[in-house]
Amino acid sequence: MCRWIAYRGEETALERYVTAPDHSLIQQSLHALESEGATNGDGFGLGWYSESENEPGIYREIRPAWSDENLRHLCRHIRSRLFFAHIRASTGTATTRTNCHPFSYGKWMYMHNGSIGEWPIIRRKVEALIPDDLYPSRIGTTDSEAVFLAMLGAGLEADPVGATARTLATVVNFVKESGTEKPVRFTCALSDGQTLYAFRYASDNTATSLYYRDTGEQVVVVSEPLDMDRTFWKPVPANHLIIAGEDRSVSVQPFAVEPPQLRAVG
Amino acid sequence: MCRWIAYRGEETALERYVTAPDHSLIQQSLHALESEGATNGDGFGLGWYSESENEPGIYREIRPAWSDENLRHLCRHIRSRLFFAHIRASTGTATTRTNCHPFSYGKWMYMHNGSIGEWPIIRRKVEALIPDDLYPSRIGTTDSEAVFLAMLGAGLEADPVGATARTLATVVNFVKESGTEKPVRFTCALSDGQTLYAFRYASDNTATSLYYRDTGEQVVVVSEPLDMDRTFWKPVPANHLIIAGEDRSVSVQPFAVEPPQLRAVG
Amino acid sequence: MCRWIAYRGEETALERYVTAPDHSLIQQSLHALESEGATNGDGFGLGWYSESENEPGIYREIRPAWSDENLRHLCRHIRSRLFFAHIRASTGTATTRTNCHPFSYGKWMYMHNGSIGEWPIIRRKVEALIPDDLYPSRIGTTDSEAVFLAMLGAGLEADPVGATARTLATVVNFVKESGTEKPVRFTCALSDGQTLYAFRYASDNTATSLYYRDTGEQVVVVSEPLDMDRTFWKPVPANHLIIAGEDRSVSVQPFAVEPPQLRAVG
Amino acid sequence: MCRWIAYRGEETALERYVTAPDHSLIQQSLHALESEGATNGDGFGLGWYSESENEPGIYREIRPAWSDENLRHLCRHIRSRLFFAHIRASTGTATTRTNCHPFSYGKWMYMHNGSIGEWPIIRRKVEALIPDDLYPSRIGTTDSEAVFLAMLGAGLEADPVGATARTLATVVNFVKESGTEKPVRFTCALSDGQTLYAFRYASDNTATSLYYRDTGEQVVVVSEPLDMDRTFWKPVPANHLIIAGEDRSVSVQPFAVEPPQLRAVG
Repeated sequence: MCRWIAYRGEETALERYVTAPDHSLIQQSLHALESEGATNGDGFGLGWYSESENEPGIYREIRPAWSDENLRHLCRHIRSRLFFAHIRASTGTATTRTNCHPFSYGKWMYMHNGSIGEWPIIRRKVEALIPDDLYPSRIGTTDSEAVFLAMLGAGLEADPVGATARTLATVVNFVKESGTEKPVRFTCALSDGQTLYAFRYASDNTATSLYYRDTGEQVVVVSEPLDMDRTFWKPVPANHLIIAGEDRSVSVQPFAVEPPQLRAVG
Repeated sequence: MCRWIAYRGEETALERYVTAPDHSLIQQSLHALESEGATNGDGFGLGWYSESENEPGIYREIRPAWSDENLRHLCRHIRSRLFFAHIRASTGTATTRTNCHPFSYGKWMYMHNGSIGEWPIIRRKVEALIPDDLYPSRIGTTDSEAVFLAMLGAGLEADPVGATARTLATVVNFVKESGTEKPVRFTCALSDGQTLYAFRYASDNTATSLYYRDTGEQVVVVSEPLDMDRTFWKPVPANHLIIAGEDRSVSVQPFAVEPPQLRAVG
Repeated sequence: MCRWIAYRGEETALERYVTAPDHSLIQQSLHALESEGATNGDGFGLGWYSESENEPGIYREIRPAWSDENLRHLCRHIRSRLFFAHIRASTGTATTRTNCHPFSYGKWMYMHNGSIGEWPIIRRKVEALIPDDLYPSRIGTTDSEAVFLAMLGAGLEADPVGATARTLATVVNFVKESGTEKPVRFTCALSDGQTLYAFRYASDNTATSLYYRDTGEQVVVVSEPLDMDRTFWKPVPANHLIIAGEDRSVSVQPFAVEPPQLRAVG
Repeated sequence: MCRWIAYRGEETALERYVTAPDHSLIQQSLHALESEGATNGDGFGLGWYSESENEPGIYREIRPAWSDENLRHLCRHIRSRLFFAHIRASTGTATTRTNCHPFSYGKWMYMHNGSIGEWPIIRRKVEALIPDDLYPSRIGTTDSEAVFLAMLGAGLEADPVGATARTLATVVNFVKESGTEKPVRFTCALSDGQTLYAFRYASDNTATSLYYRDTGEQVVVVSEPLDMDRTFWKPVPANHLIIAGEDRSVSVQPFAVEPPQLRAVG
C-alpha cells in the first residue's frame, strides 16, 4: 500500500503540498495513518507538467523519501499547476526506479495505490493486454505499470474513463478466474496535463482510502489528509472517480466497472 | 557489451581473480580492451557457491565496480571453488539490480555478455518461452534473464548443453523472422555448482571474445585476459563451449545450434 | 537511535541471527520496539571476521535493510564466529555508506547506538582528539566514527576498556562545557577479532537498551531481544560493560567513566 | 579531475547545454578529451537559480550521469538563467552525494575541478580555516567543500575574488610546508545568483583546461568545449578569472594569489 497526492490548480511550488504540511507525504513515508503498513520506504517519485513541455517531468528514486535531500530541493524549486507525488510500499516487486511511480507515456501520467489480486498468477494475462507498440515501454515489473499500459492499449487517450473501466473489468475477471480471494484494489490518479482524474475502486468492499479538498482555486486529491483539520477533506466514495478539469470544475461521479471487453494481443 | 570471469578450481578468495590482477575485472570496468565500449559502469555482480549451501550467493549492485568498497571487502573475504563475476555495459535496459548479472535459479547460476538481435522487437516471443511456473522469477527486464529462464524451461537442469542449443536456435529464428540484421551474440557462463559451462556463439562471424586458462588446478574463463602475459590464455573458438567438470577435466567442444524446437507457452 | 546485534561463538551463518528470528534485525528495521523511532531505515551494515583474514569484512549500504536482497544472500552465505550487524536511524548526519556502521580500523571493529550531546556544537573538539596518523581514516561525518577514532588515539589497541572510559570522560566533559542538556548515550560493541566488548553507558539515567544471551556456546548482545521469549535475554545494567572472551568466558562489569585525560592534537 | 559547465544568460532549459550538445557533459562523463582520466563516473550534480527563490536548487547523485534518467528529465524541465552542472572523477574521497558538486551556502553556489596538493596531509589545516558557525555545513569530506567553506570564512560574501585569492594563497602555503610536490590546481565556478565567477589557477604551470564562449546573450564556461567547432570557444588563460555580470558584461582578468592572510580558527 502506497500513499500519494495529486494537485491541480494555480501554479505553486511542490513543497507547499509534498514536504511542508504537518502530515505531508514525507511524514507519511514514516508514519502513514490510514494504511496497513505505516512505512512507505520503498522508493518515491514526483511527476509534474511545465509550461514549456508537453510531456511531464519525472523524478523517481529508490531511497526513502524522508532522507532524500534532492527531493526537498526539487519540491522547493519546481512549480507546476498539475503534479503528482508518490511514496511506495512494495507489495512484492523489487525496489528499483523503474518500479516507482508515477509512470508516464507521452503526455499521460499515472500513479497507483492498491493491489491487483495475486499478481504473480495473473501477471502474464495482464501483460498480454499491452499492445506490441507499447510493450517497449514496459521497463519495470509492477502490476501498476502493466495496468497503465493496458489502459493505454484500451483507448485511454480518447476515452480515459471508459478505457480504465474496460481494463479493470478485464483484470477483475482475470483475478476471479485465477481462483484467488485477493481483491482488486485500485486507487489511481491520471492526467493528460490538463484534466486530473482520480479513481477509487475495489472489487470488494475494501477500497483503499482517498480524499479530496476543493478550494475553488486548487483541487488536491490524497490517500490521506495532509493535516488534522478534517473539515475540508472529503472522502471520495468507493467506486467513484473525481474529475478536475481545466475550467476549475470538479465533479465526483460513480465509476462502474463494465463487463470485460479486452482481448490479449496476438 | 559486458565483461565477465568464471572460476572453477581449488577454493580461493575471489580477490585473487576479481580485484587483484593487473587487468582485473575492476580495471576492465574502466578500461576494457576487447570490447566496443571501454567502460563497463552500469552495475556489476558476484555469484559464488559455498560449501554449506546448495544455492549460490548473489551480490548485485548498480554502482560502477571501480568505486564499490563493499566489492573489495567481499572479494577479500568470500572464498569459493566456483564463482562468477560480471561488470555490465547496458545495451538499453535500465540500470537496476534486477538487471545485473549473475542470475540464479535454485542451484543454477548464469551470466551473459552479448546481444539478442533487436531486443525490443523479439522480447515478447522470448518471454513467451518461459513456462508459467518460472515466470515469477522474471524479476528484471533484460534479454539475458529472459533467455536464461527460457533455457530452464527447455530442460536446462537435465541437459544443459542441449537446452542451451535448442533455446538459441529458437531465438536465432525469432531474430531472423523479425527482419533485423542485428546478430545474436551469446557468450555465457553457466553452472550447477559442480560443473562450469561456458559458451561462445554468434549467429554471424562476430562472436564476442572469450578466453580460458587451465592450470590443472584451476580453470578461469574470461571475456578478456587478466594480464598481459598471453602465453597461458587460449581463445575459446567461436561456436564452441568449454566444460570444466568436477574431476578437473576441461574440454572444449563444438557447439551447434540446432533447428528450433521450442514453443511458446499457452 | 539505531539497533544492533553482536555475536561471538561457534561459527554460524549470519542469517541465524540477522534475518531469521521472529524479531530479527530486519524486522527491527521496520518495527523496533524499544527505540524512540520505530523505523531504522537510514542504511545498515555487516562486519565479520573470517578465518583467513585478520581484518574484518565490512558491507555497508544506504538502502533500508528490509528491501536489500544482497543482505539476505550475504547473511546466508557468510559464516563467522564473531560478527556485527547494525541498522541505522540517523540523528542528523547524511545517509551515506561512509556514515553507516560498523567502522573498522586494522583488526578492530566498532558500532554504536546513541547520541553524543549536541553533535554540531562539540564535533570540532571531538575531531581534535583524533591523532594525525588516524585522521585520513575519518572518511565519514558521524559522531560515532569520530569517537571510535578518538578511542583508537587514546590507546584502544593496548587497553580497550580504559581507552573507551578516558575518551567518554573527555567527551562528556565537552558536552557539559557546551551548555547543552542533551546527554551522552553510548551503547557500543567493539572487537579485535577475538574478544567482544559491549558497553552500555549514559551520562544521565537514560541509557539506551542493551541485552545479552549467553548459552555457553554463543554470546549474543543486542539492542533489543530477537524473540519474545524473554527468559534467556538479560539486560546489561546501565554503566556496565560485557566482555566475551576467547575462552567462552562472559563477564559483566561496572564501567566507570574516568575524569578527562585526553588532549586535543596539535 | 572532473568536468563542469557554468551558464549565465537568458533563461533556458538546462538540456540545451548539459545533455543535448555533441560533446555534452553527459558525453564527457564517458569520454572526456582534455582530462587525465576519460571517465567521470563518480557522481554528478546540478545547481540552478529560480526566479522564485534566493537559494539555488541542488540535485546531486552518486550514479554516473550517463545512466541517470532523472537527470534527463530535470534538464528538460528546469529552466534557469544561471546554472552549474558537474560530473565527478574522484581523487580519493568516497562516492557519496555529500561529496558531489555543486556545493551551496545561502545564495552562494560553488563547484570545482582540480586537486589541493596531497589532501590527506593538509586536510586538517584547511578544515581549521572554516569558522565555527560554518562548520556544521561541512557535511562531506572533499577538499573542494572545505576550500569553499574556508573561502566563505575569508569574506567571500563581501569580496568574492579577494576571499578566493586569500584562501588559495593560504592553501598553497600549507601545501608548500607539507613537503609534497603535488601542486594546487584550482578551476572553479562561483555565483551569488547574479554574477558568475570562474577561476583558472595552478600553483605551477599545469592548470586544468577552461574555456568560455560569449555570444552577447549567453556566457558559457566549460572544462572542455561542448562541440568540435572550436572557433567560438576561447581558453581562459592560466591564473585568470572570468566575471560575467548582471549587465551582460564579460571580463577576463588576471588572478593573483596573494601572500597568506588567513589564520586557523580557535
